[in-house]
Amino acid sequence: MKAVVYEGNGKVVLKERPAPVILDDKDAIVQVTLTTICSSDIHIKHGAVPKAVPGTILGHEFVGRVVETGKAVKKVRPGDRVAVNVETFCGECFFCKRGFVNNCTDEHGGWALGCRIDGGQAEYARIPFADNGLTVIPDHVTDEQALFNGDILSTGYWAAKIGEIKPADTVAVIGAGPTGLCTMLCARLYTPGKIIAIDTDEYRLNLAKEKGLADITLVPGRDNIEETVRNMTDGRGADTVFEVAGGQDTFQTAWMIARPNANVVIVAMYEEYQMLPLPDMYGKNLVFKTGGVDGSYCREIMELTACGKLDAGFLITHRCRLGEIMEAYDVFENKRDHVIKYAVKP
Amino acid sequence: MKAVVYEGNGKVVLKERPAPVILDDKDAIVQVTLTTICSSDIHIKHGAVPKAVPGTILGHEFVGRVVETGKAVKKVRPGDRVAVNVETFCGECFFCKRGFVNNCTDEHGGWALGCRIDGGQAEYARIPFADNGLTVIPDHVTDEQALFNGDILSTGYWAAKIGEIKPADTVAVIGAGPTGLCTMLCARLYTPGKIIAIDTDEYRLNLAKEKGLADITLVPGRDNIEETVRNMTDGRGADTVFEVAGGQDTFQTAWMIARPNANVVIVAMYEEYQMLPLPDMYGKNLVFKTGGVDGSYCREIMELTACGKLDAGFLITHRCRLGEIMEAYDVFENKRDHVIKYAVKP
Amino acid sequence: MKAVVYEGNGKVVLKERPAPVILDDKDAIVQVTLTTICSSDIHIKHGAVPKAVPGTILGHEFVGRVVETGKAVKKVRPGDRVAVNVETFCGECFFCKRGFVNNCTDEHGGWALGCRIDGGQAEYARIPFADNGLTVIPDHVTDEQALFNGDILSTGYWAAKIGEIKPADTVAVIGAGPTGLCTMLCARLYTPGKIIAIDTDEYRLNLAKEKGLADITLVPGRDNIEETVRNMTDGRGADTVFEVAGGQDTFQTAWMIARPNANVVIVAMYEEYQMLPLPDMYGKNLVFKTGGVDGSYCREIMELTACGKLDAGFLITHRCRLGEIMEAYDVFENKRDHVIKYAVKP
Amino acid sequence: MKAVVYEGNGKVVLKERPAPVILDDKDAIVQVTLTTICSSDIHIKHGAVPKAVPGTILGHEFVGRVVETGKAVKKVRPGDRVAVNVETFCGECFFCKRGFVNNCTDEHGGWALGCRIDGGQAEYARIPFADNGLTVIPDHVTDEQALFNGDILSTGYWAAKIGEIKPADTVAVIGAGPTGLCTMLCARLYTPGKIIAIDTDEYRLNLAKEKGLADITLVPGRDNIEETVRNMTDGRGADTVFEVAGGQDTFQTAWMIARPNANVVIVAMYEEYQMLPLPDMYGKNLVFKTGGVDGSYCREIMELTACGKLDAGFLITHRCRLGEIMEAYDVFENKRDHVIKYAVKP
Repeated sequence: MKAVVYEGNGKVVLKERPAPVILDDKDAIVQVTLTTICSSDIHIKHGAVPKAVPGTILGHEFVGRVVETGKAVKKVRPGDRVAVNVETFCGECFFCKRGFVNNCTDEHGGWALGCRIDGGQAEYARIPFADNGLTVIPDHVTDEQALFNGDILSTGYWAAKIGEIKPADTVAVIGAGPTGLCTMLCARLYTPGKIIAIDTDEYRLNLAKEKGLADITLVPGRDNIEETVRNMTDGRGADTVFEVAGGQDTFQTAWMIARPNANVVIVAMYEEYQMLPLPDMYGKNLVFKTGGVDGSYCREIMELTACGKLDAGFLITHRCRLGEIMEAYDVFENKRDHVIKYAVKP
Repeated sequence: MKAVVYEGNGKVVLKERPAPVILDDKDAIVQVTLTTICSSDIHIKHGAVPKAVPGTILGHEFVGRVVETGKAVKKVRPGDRVAVNVETFCGECFFCKRGFVNNCTDEHGGWALGCRIDGGQAEYARIPFADNGLTVIPDHVTDEQALFNGDILSTGYWAAKIGEIKPADTVAVIGAGPTGLCTMLCARLYTPGKIIAIDTDEYRLNLAKEKGLADITLVPGRDNIEETVRNMTDGRGADTVFEVAGGQDTFQTAWMIARPNANVVIVAMYEEYQMLPLPDMYGKNLVFKTGGVDGSYCREIMELTACGKLDAGFLITHRCRLGEIMEAYDVFENKRDHVIKYAVKP
Repeated sequence: MKAVVYEGNGKVVLKERPAPVILDDKDAIVQVTLTTICSSDIHIKHGAVPKAVPGTILGHEFVGRVVETGKAVKKVRPGDRVAVNVETFCGECFFCKRGFVNNCTDEHGGWALGCRIDGGQAEYARIPFADNGLTVIPDHVTDEQALFNGDILSTGYWAAKIGEIKPADTVAVIGAGPTGLCTMLCARLYTPGKIIAIDTDEYRLNLAKEKGLADITLVPGRDNIEETVRNMTDGRGADTVFEVAGGQDTFQTAWMIARPNANVVIVAMYEEYQMLPLPDMYGKNLVFKTGGVDGSYCREIMELTACGKLDAGFLITHRCRLGEIMEAYDVFENKRDHVIKYAVKP
Repeated sequence: MKAVVYEGNGKVVLKERPAPVILDDKDAIVQVTLTTICSSDIHIKHGAVPKAVPGTILGHEFVGRVVETGKAVKKVRPGDRVAVNVETFCGECFFCKRGFVNNCTDEHGGWALGCRIDGGQAEYARIPFADNGLTVIPDHVTDEQALFNGDILSTGYWAAKIGEIKPADTVAVIGAGPTGLCTMLCARLYTPGKIIAIDTDEYRLNLAKEKGLADITLVPGRDNIEETVRNMTDGRGADTVFEVAGGQDTFQTAWMIARPNANVVIVAMYEEYQMLPLPDMYGKNLVFKTGGVDGSYCREIMELTACGKLDAGFLITHRCRLGEIMEAYDVFENKRDHVIKYAVKP
């Protein structure tokens, strides 16, 4: 089958690979019907994900159809349309029992797909712990609507949840890329009074506004971010801040626009250490939540999608076939042509 | 009256000052019966507390007797023995209503006593918002038992609370100074399975053990901290970590000995910026809680003291008169003679 | 001035009464610009509210303009347009500090307005603790939009909050009267997957559906409530149930349609004791939350109204002048003419 | 082997039964080394547990040694000393994932042992879902110390947890029988200011006091319960009330001694419906938590026992051999000889 393989040293190629087979009773084989490229794939390509293993098929965000299941699999059956969770996890260890599936202690636990074990930028993929990692797609939900269920939408959902947003709160989201947009989409579930989106890319900010995700949009350089946020909140600052941009300046902006005792959620995957100016923020009593998605809510996300309350399909700005994916990588990596997300058909 | 005055530029002197008078209907005048020196006083002396105003009488941790009250004061009366809260706060603003009294928006809100307004290393002190800032001491509780109610015991209580300790958890406390010991004392209220105390001062560690506060004591250099904590927790790390030492190395130790998805509470008042190695901790999903005490639980602390469940009196290792306090400052600042805390009688 | 007075023994009359004056420094006098009738007024008329004092002016749900303030009032000024909180409360006692303002220990604390002290079915009203009990109405919010802020909308908001709704949950609301509709409106803030509205009045159910508040509507007698709810929830039952009907049968329905470990919120004001069949529900581990609104979120409700995310104005189906209110009482009490709520102009 | 069998119609007999064998890959066979009688066994004998199946071996509270495991069992091995959880549960369904294991949807989920499937008043028992239902006993913990881990101690732990006790709170426990004492023991983990124990049996109250579980003891009839509780709490009432007596009068006492907005936890297994006087408690805003233990914390309980912070061994007042258990049933059922709990050795 055709598959995108990470070969190490910044090299990613499309090549022929044998189709996967069941290796464990809890595995399922999924025929990929739609897949996509994630910014983490770019991080892998750049060598910025130390745990990524050369020779691995990339892709951790995709949907498909179950074609075979190991004999211990109970919740999905061949023929089921499914969304795949970025994380594979045992469901039984100390961390899984608490919903912290990103730290599942199984050797294949956490983010392994398309990183340490073969992923879904291919025609078929093997999914370990299939009962935990697959979410059935209802008939009336399309592949495009379900495509982001297991990764960036899960990330936005997780971030919004740990952000502890309450109705009428002021929420600031720094970064209006795919994950930032998903964070806004999920923050909306808790009905904040307003969402302030901050980015240097005005095209993306306009998209956020047009889709009803952002109430206010601010551009660093053009706007005085700190002052504007403070003016909009009786001088206090935002109740919750999401940092989804990953920059040094945005890290500092994040805590500065937060009100005292706020949650500052670091959603972005940082490539560099950041300075935490504790003396400057002494007495501000901020809470910093760091990490990567705990993908424990795929079922809820699918239900919200099914009833029309959460639709990330609009993120798909570009479509292509698997054979054309290397060009898509290029467009996506360089943010050309106002791309947000690709939908790639094997 | 005699009073310890911060004169700026590292200078603290004992001198004569006029006794305070009621300035506002919500004020009370307290005759100080016991006071103490806090490490924050040393920070002020060092010039490391920018908001400290030269000319201010120091002292934010003391007990006394109410001698006069403004006419809007309802909860205390002349004659009442009281513990004083380090924070003065209005009780009505956005932050006060949420218990975030450290960020009270009143001009005298938050930590002002002995910093921006005259404090309690003196014979008398004026307490703004007396109904919020004074806690009546029951007859059978001694001044020494009540002395730390409003500051370091409140800090330990606040830290333990936001640490979200659950029964049977493993708790690590880095730093066994006065505040570290109070943190252990208050962590005990939630019955963790074990408390691991970490310090370079073995005398203090022994005190923690002897008083039943620490179950295990570790010394950096002598012990491999990370490995030991991991071995004691089935390889996971501590469920909650309190950083009460304020050092660069201890900041890094704090997050490294925490298990994934743990709370890391930064209790210490840092004098320098710290590096947050986000890429190294990616996926560990840690929560960092920073700040200074929100002194919202003085009543509860006094009740626990009254019923014998929280007694910080043992912290007093040294006693002197107000006239001798400058020598006490010297002993305390240089941690001579195994001093933990002084009780100073005006 | 004209005022509706409860005279005891089922008698409510419109008569002349002197205008109120400031009695305490924390009072404000409000000129009523719009008022309404609440089902609690009917309960008072029926003698079912023991604490209601004959001779009191009725009305606890109204908006107006501040005309005078006591000298301790700081947050509102003459000229401000305000919504009035059903509860008057000191803001300082044990309960107020926890947001449990319905149990404020002040003698005028809790629900007193229009019950034990003169209320707002009149031209003017005196509001004790004005800083706590008045919410400023932004210019672009109309009186009709703000009218329910302090009572039934606060009730729906409180109920939804203690219902602990999570995104994608199934919520059942029994009773589609004014308060039931407000409960649905506020439940929406947490984006449940679906809201099931249950009532015998199909007109009200249709209204709920048409306004986007209910996803499914069920009629006892016509539909098998229990079976339908179970079928819609994979056999489990509703995640949260709100009982806003106040009947004996609906009380039993409430716990029967709840899934195990659900919250069952008793919002209705019951006039009779109810049977709790503990042996039948053993092991179902239900949580019953009872009581009356804790009106602690008027500011948040007003902000959500101001930004268009919470609009209860559609509840107003009838309008009249204060001089015609006795006829309005009659229509409202007998639920004639598909009345939901009246807007009454003094 | 010898086993106590429920034969229906109030009949319980000691008789010979074949030893159990592995029926499922997730089963384990446990050789019982210590077992006990629970008041639920008496309820079954009385015919008050409808789901109890005649012919079943009784016993759901016991410890033993694993002698055989099904091939899917991973967490325990033959030779392990184990405490048995009263509940058997799959760990994977909607409810198990939320810790609500009492409502596990598996056909053998929830309380089945010694009720619907053969239990542990016998020489051997088969434990379904052994990985979830067995807790390894550390070497230095005795069988007697571990005996109550899976049932009444789990019940006390669950009750204390959902009671949401905070440090310094006033807790009232109605009923000082075995489960009431366990509730006090576990309430202590959260360091309430005081625990008020209420019972008509002064011997049990004295035991509670002597073991340091109760600070105050009250006897209905002798003491005015309501007034005393109110006087001890500044007129407010208890912050959390546990009803562990199961009577009609105690049910009413429970809510009456609770302060407004308190949690009232109904721990007892009621045999009769109770009246909920909603109009009398209107505005008191109470939360009633009902149900039976969710046994999700056996590991934590064992850890607390292992480190000496939770020891229920003192509950054992009587010891006998399995051959003498019918006499023990008689003593236990009739509360003769100040019995609290039996330890029965097969």
